Amino acid sequence: MYEELKKELYKAHMNLEKYRLVAYTSGNVSVKVNNHVIIKPSGIPYDELKAEDMVVLDMEGNTVEGKLKPSVDSATHLYLYKNLPDVGSIIHTHSPYASAFALLSQPIPVYSTAHADVFGVQVPVSNYAPVGSEAIGKAVIEVVNQAKAVLLSKHGVIVMGKDIKEAIRKAIFLEEVAQTAYLARTIGNPEPLDEQEAKRLYEFHHSNYGQK
Amino acid sequence: MYEELKKELYKAHMNLEKYRLVAYTSGNVSVKVNNHVIIKPSGIPYDELKAEDMVVLDMEGNTVEGKLKPSVDSATHLYLYKNLPDVGSIIHTHSPYASAFALLSQPIPVYSTAHADVFGVQVPVSNYAPVGSEAIGKAVIEVVNQAKAVLLSKHGVIVMGKDIKEAIRKAIFLEEVAQTAYLARTIGNPEPLDEQEAKRLYEFHHSNYGQK
Amino acid sequence: MYEELKKELYKAHMNLEKYRLVAYTSGNVSVKVNNHVIIKPSGIPYDELKAEDMVVLDMEGNTVEGKLKPSVDSATHLYLYKNLPDVGSIIHTHSPYASAFALLSQPIPVYSTAHADVFGVQVPVSNYAPVGSEAIGKAVIEVVNQAKAVLLSKHGVIVMGKDIKEAIRKAIFLEEVAQTAYLARTIGNPEPLDEQEAKRLYEFHHSNYGQK
Amino acid sequence: MYEELKKELYKAHMNLEKYRLVAYTSGNVSVKVNNHVIIKPSGIPYDELKAEDMVVLDMEGNTVEGKLKPSVDSATHLYLYKNLPDVGSIIHTHSPYASAFALLSQPIPVYSTAHADVFGVQVPVSNYAPVGSEAIGKAVIEVVNQAKAVLLSKHGVIVMGKDIKEAIRKAIFLEEVAQTAYLARTIGNPEPLDEQEAKRLYEFHHSNYGQK
Repeated sequence: MYEELKKELYKAHMNLEKYRLVAYTSGNVSVKVNNHVIIKPSGIPYDELKAEDMVVLDMEGNTVEGKLKPSVDSATHLYLYKNLPDVGSIIHTHSPYASAFALLSQPIPVYSTAHADVFGVQVPVSNYAPVGSEAIGKAVIEVVNQAKAVLLSKHGVIVMGKDIKEAIRKAIFLEEVAQTAYLARTIGNPEPLDEQEAKRLYEFHHSNYGQK
Repeated sequence: MYEELKKELYKAHMNLEKYRLVAYTSGNVSVKVNNHVIIKPSGIPYDELKAEDMVVLDMEGNTVEGKLKPSVDSATHLYLYKNLPDVGSIIHTHSPYASAFALLSQPIPVYSTAHADVFGVQVPVSNYAPVGSEAIGKAVIEVVNQAKAVLLSKHGVIVMGKDIKEAIRKAIFLEEVAQTAYLARTIGNPEPLDEQEAKRLYEFHHSNYGQK
Repeated sequence: MYEELKKELYKAHMNLEKYRLVAYTSGNVSVKVNNHVIIKPSGIPYDELKAEDMVVLDMEGNTVEGKLKPSVDSATHLYLYKNLPDVGSIIHTHSPYASAFALLSQPIPVYSTAHADVFGVQVPVSNYAPVGSEAIGKAVIEVVNQAKAVLLSKHGVIVMGKDIKEAIRKAIFLEEVAQTAYLARTIGNPEPLDEQEAKRLYEFHHSNYGQK
Repeated sequence: MYEELKKELYKAHMNLEKYRLVAYTSGNVSVKVNNHVIIKPSGIPYDELKAEDMVVLDMEGNTVEGKLKPSVDSATHLYLYKNLPDVGSIIHTHSPYASAFALLSQPIPVYSTAHADVFGVQVPVSNYAPVGSEAIGKAVIEVVNQAKAVLLSKHGVIVMGKDIKEAIRKAIFLEEVAQTAYLARTIGNPEPLDEQEAKRLYEFHHSNYGQK
């Protein structure tokens, strides 16, 4: 099932590694297709991962195809897909700069045009919630905004996109935005962009950037 | 058209990735040749980019060759070429350390001989200007100095060279210079080089460094 | 002897390099098998290292097989294997973020769920002990806790696992955890997780994460 | 002439790039053999450099073999070889963490056993001296100590070894030592090792580490 999509999902995981957003076994990407969600198997190191290892789940989390156990974060992904119908792909990482803000339970303000372009508004922080049940999903839904990217208190990040391509781009940019925010804050006091200007940049970017 | 130059432009984009000055789709390099400007297409990830994707524009921004939409920063590049006749190649990135200074709207003083060698004077910051029109180009022209490198307030950086080779070298060195400045400032108070000495180093470097 | 295990040990060393936990010649991995310990030879650069270079020692440190001199840290590894019977693999690195805490003789508190998942409790610091005898091993045993990872005062880190796979994962995660802790502390005051919650996460992770 | 040595010198330059001690064209390695010094040509990017490009100089700086202009730092290398007869290879970089200390004209104290092992004593800072003449060489000689590694005020670093292998190892470790010192200082007040202990570690390391 879904051979091409599994390959694209595999490539997305490789991009997480390439951009150093994950380490060894951490992090995962999923994609929704029909009434199924395809996700990384649990605890497989990136250098051993294969496209055919990806696990196909139904919306209740039962394995429809795949020999391996799915990610322990599967319940989080499923809860988010059920509650956000326009989301088609979800990424979870502990990317270090974004996670530093998560450890402090601090949102990332819109300090840069890159932040405004991709996210439009500040990246919020959810309340603390433990892994393995729907608790993280619920905590994300409480705070999710237009950015469709949420810092998980004392944990890491969740980013969501309409497809794998958008989700991976947002995961990479969230870390870039977090790093630049971190660097600026350690040598000065950056001021957030005006809210209206951030909104305008977001709309310009989403109307004009990219092909078609 | 310009097959060799497109290959060189492609290689320059790969160097931006290699030196981690750009992430996934951000950043772009252009080159001027005759009355044309060749530039990266908009929003193509670096690992999908090909030399033949590069877009050839005339000086008014009309596409002369290429199937893809050019970078949303094309208006900025064109404005700068028109106003700075000795510039033959322009690079825009959000390289993290230099962008940290941009987020603070702080110039980078000449703390090091490497800075003096390559740029001669401090790297200035332009006023804030939004993407997509000539506004960024105008803001750059207001502050541009001998360094031919400008921090874009709350945004990123623009570097300019007589050709691709010089521009790419300046983009890489600007980030190195910004990183070293950042590191020094977080553990102490670095003092800028004397202005005359910086000028002397710049002249020595530009007369003696490299081949021929 | 132990051809397959030597290959796995070699691959573990390559992972230390890939994740930038070691530099050029520093760091080493060992594995216990029967009454033997296999370990990296002393001072061989990672890009010259070969699987067949690995040295097989008996529990008194005599070379059983191998033409090269074993790591100067061999006495430390042997002492730990003798005193911690459930340890099957040991890694020593100077990974930079974790070593920064070691230079300050400060433990790493459980700031994140990733820390709790993998280590359960804070990573302690041993007293200062010089290399080359059993002194480091003894200093580690004095403070070792459930984390089976110890910062060596003014030196680096030791992590221990039941096998190579677990040890390498812990070495990579210790540096990730240390980096995130470092970043959070330089822009704020992260609060450690509740002790009971950290324990619960550790137990959940060790019952549910990974395959089988 | 010296074909094998040129290959080893080439490989050393590639290691500088791999460990991110240099950027694009910066930095250089030289080696002394008989009454000749072999050194990198000026301004050649690392991805275009070839072993056969290396320039052979006599001790007065005249080109004995090679079509390219030698490094602008050649006068520095030659001065040091003439004044330090046991030095067989010299490396100059702007590696970022060590250069941060150089920008502040601060020495790097012996905070770690890795520093003691490889350098024995603090890494000193020379007075400011401009490139291109013997001035840098003289400034280095004024402060050089057992570490045979010197921070160049507002510039970068020089490390020296008996051969290429030792020099490259010292260049890599100097940056590791500087990074760890930097990280420790930004979250605390690391205390230097006792001077006698540092000396003891240096002697132990130089008697026991590595093969033969």
